[in-house]
Amino acid sequence: MAQKPSIAKGTRDFTPEEVSKRNYIISTIKRHFETFGFLPIETPSFENSDTLMGKYGDEGDRLIFKILNSGDFLSKVDNALYEKKDANALTSKISEKALRYDLTVPFARYVVMHQNEIDLPFKRYQVQPVWRADRPQKGRFREFYQCDADVVGSKSLWQEVEFVQLYDAVFNSLKLEGITIKMNNRKILSGIAEVIGAKDKLIDFTVALDKLDKIGEDGVKREMLEKGISEEALTKVQPLFSFTGSNTDKLNSLRSLLETSEEGMKGVEELSFIMEAIATLGLKTATLDLDVTLARGLNYYTGAIFEVSAPSEVKMGSIGGGGRYDDLTGIFGLKDVSGVGISFGLDRIYLVLEELNLFPEEVLESTKVLFLNFGETEALYCLKALKKLREVDVKSEMYPDDAKMKKQMNFANKRNIPFVVLAGSKEIQEEKFTLKNMKTGEQFEVTTEELIEKVS
Amino acid sequence: MAQKPSIAKGTRDFTPEEVSKRNYIISTIKRHFETFGFLPIETPSFENSDTLMGKYGDEGDRLIFKILNSGDFLSKVDNALYEKKDANALTSKISEKALRYDLTVPFARYVVMHQNEIDLPFKRYQVQPVWRADRPQKGRFREFYQCDADVVGSKSLWQEVEFVQLYDAVFNSLKLEGITIKMNNRKILSGIAEVIGAKDKLIDFTVALDKLDKIGEDGVKREMLEKGISEEALTKVQPLFSFTGSNTDKLNSLRSLLETSEEGMKGVEELSFIMEAIATLGLKTATLDLDVTLARGLNYYTGAIFEVSAPSEVKMGSIGGGGRYDDLTGIFGLKDVSGVGISFGLDRIYLVLEELNLFPEEVLESTKVLFLNFGETEALYCLKALKKLREVDVKSEMYPDDAKMKKQMNFANKRNIPFVVLAGSKEIQEEKFTLKNMKTGEQFEVTTEELIEKVS
Repeated sequence: MAQKPSIAKGTRDFTPEEVSKRNYIISTIKRHFETFGFLPIETPSFENSDTLMGKYGDEGDRLIFKILNSGDFLSKVDNALYEKKDANALTSKISEKALRYDLTVPFARYVVMHQNEIDLPFKRYQVQPVWRADRPQKGRFREFYQCDADVVGSKSLWQEVEFVQLYDAVFNSLKLEGITIKMNNRKILSGIAEVIGAKDKLIDFTVALDKLDKIGEDGVKREMLEKGISEEALTKVQPLFSFTGSNTDKLNSLRSLLETSEEGMKGVEELSFIMEAIATLGLKTATLDLDVTLARGLNYYTGAIFEVSAPSEVKMGSIGGGGRYDDLTGIFGLKDVSGVGISFGLDRIYLVLEELNLFPEEVLESTKVLFLNFGETEALYCLKALKKLREVDVKSEMYPDDAKMKKQMNFANKRNIPFVVLAGSKEIQEEKFTLKNMKTGEQFEVTTEELIEKVS
Repeated sequence: MAQKPSIAKGTRDFTPEEVSKRNYIISTIKRHFETFGFLPIETPSFENSDTLMGKYGDEGDRLIFKILNSGDFLSKVDNALYEKKDANALTSKISEKALRYDLTVPFARYVVMHQNEIDLPFKRYQVQPVWRADRPQKGRFREFYQCDADVVGSKSLWQEVEFVQLYDAVFNSLKLEGITIKMNNRKILSGIAEVIGAKDKLIDFTVALDKLDKIGEDGVKREMLEKGISEEALTKVQPLFSFTGSNTDKLNSLRSLLETSEEGMKGVEELSFIMEAIATLGLKTATLDLDVTLARGLNYYTGAIFEVSAPSEVKMGSIGGGGRYDDLTGIFGLKDVSGVGISFGLDRIYLVLEELNLFPEEVLESTKVLFLNFGETEALYCLKALKKLREVDVKSEMYPDDAKMKKQMNFANKRNIPFVVLAGSKEIQEEKFTLKNMKTGEQFEVTTEELIEKVS
């Protein structure tokens, strides 16, 4: 009996229309990555497990897809261990490879293994799928693309300046106006924690502060108190709860708030450098905004933190993010290589462009010309013209069977093919074709040369 | 202690140069797929195991990479089974997903699951990686790309004609002249087996015949006799051992050899139709050759069989292949959908282009302009021009740190960057830049506009 086909949970097929739309976004991003001097690399889909395990925390380890060893994978498992029937303990014995969880750790491995052929600073981009054993839900998939650009080997803040410009350039090309590039700096968050005497509570503090939008000032304060942050501390950071005005205003507030923290002041100066440069250089359509509540990736970012939000009329989480991480390659034995990078959220950008109807019409164009098929002689006559059209890159095809004309016309209609070409014995005798414009219904008698001209 | 990084056996990192070269091949193939009216689809990297298992024979099943279930994967394994410690029996209990082994079975699944939105005939292309747990060796990898184009839903032989043209168009664009497109037909092989009264020995017969190049006529005959094919049969097929001349000559020989086999004659007529059409339409640089020893994919091909060989001066196996398979989607419950498709062997095409030095120089061009960095003021001044260069798609970057000039120039040299731009206080005052051509050593004083003109 035939098998009922199914697709694995949390994964997707992409139809021709979806592939074209995704490629439009990806190729726009890649084009800008390249004009900004980033070079493409690719790493394998799976890595040796020890390259990935332990790099993303316990939750990450759990979400990494493990690949079962090939052949008799139990032959090397000793009986004592096997008899415990403990999945956790057994995993590393029967699985040595795992699917890529992100592009950052494989990149770090790449840099270390290729250090002799790389000229630092190394600017690389990478657009490849990653896999996570997350519970699938609306908008969250087990296979999805990451689009990353990173620079390693330089601590220069010009990189951060360029990343702001890069976000602006990409979203401007995608005609997505009104995005906000939010920036913060890990050192500012550390400085705040230091100033309020809660250095050990940095994570609790920022997690609570991050909720300001959702639960309001009172809610945030309640949570901070519950986490053991003192009333006195809250009074000190009161300015953060009504943190408005221009970026300059915000930087000035931070300067007075953090004047006793060396680290905090360093963060303020870093952000200030970036914001001044951007003010001078200008952005096309994006807005750069200092957001002191921004705390993504606090586990690994050590300097700048970026996050991009969609235009406010669209309800959507962040569509991009990134930051600076010192010592990216330290885990693999190459010390003192600072990195900074950003990422584009392909799936979300797709949804935003869809919602705002921003995909250009050309993206959806597939076959432009369909030659109808009236039999062997006619088909061979058509293939000669078809060959010439294809030589000038016109997407064109012939209906493969000499089916009823109505069926062939229906096919052209369903596929939204704009031009149909007919050639019967009359046309063949006159060395012509009948060209039909499917939108207007107009028909023309044309030579091969006129045909090429009309459709290209 | 830091971990020594390693890459999984049989997988590869691709450097920027390699990615660019691979993309050159892939984008050439895709461009022609599209001008021939093929539409892109993508399917997930992993499928439910039952979609893949049993589709590629026992050897295939063994080579499929299985993914370990997440979480406590042993909890549902009953103790009696577990205690047997039998890897084979355990696999399906602890693994429900597997990595894609080729693009054809996922495509069949796609067609069946999307049948209501697809207009037949459906021409799709797909360029994605596949994975096989093969023993890695020179030129054989565990992760590699397949580049496939298939048409389903039509038995028309015009498809075969178009595939010959497609191969010719792609390899012509890649400037790879002198390839041979070899064709055969499963029905001809069956006809031969029928005529010699060895219908049940079709596989043995073709396997032996396929070795004609390697072991010669005597060797082939010896092997056939060993497999139980009679002396009398060998006399009948004697013409096959000196099968030369034009395709027309070969077709005529086959017509007399196979006149008593209805199936065989059908194969001859099919091939004859395709060869006559191609003779009328002409090929740019490829040669079409009837090769009666060609027997690839005999398990699944039911009509045309294609194989492409590299120019004879290059020692390399086939660089492409394909064929017609009736009932592709039958395994998933959709009957009577005939398919025909071809594939390009990316890795081998890469090696051939490399050996013949056919990668165009532009493919290797990365950053075109490097701005040197002499400090904050100078850098900001440069970034203004850099922004304008990037707006006209010139790949350009600034050295991020104000390192010693020699170090920055070295970087430009090592990276083969053709233009370097310098701006010190003198240039800034005059609103100019010094542009250095790194090949000729020439230097020019230019305005921003002149700079753009000179490098783009």
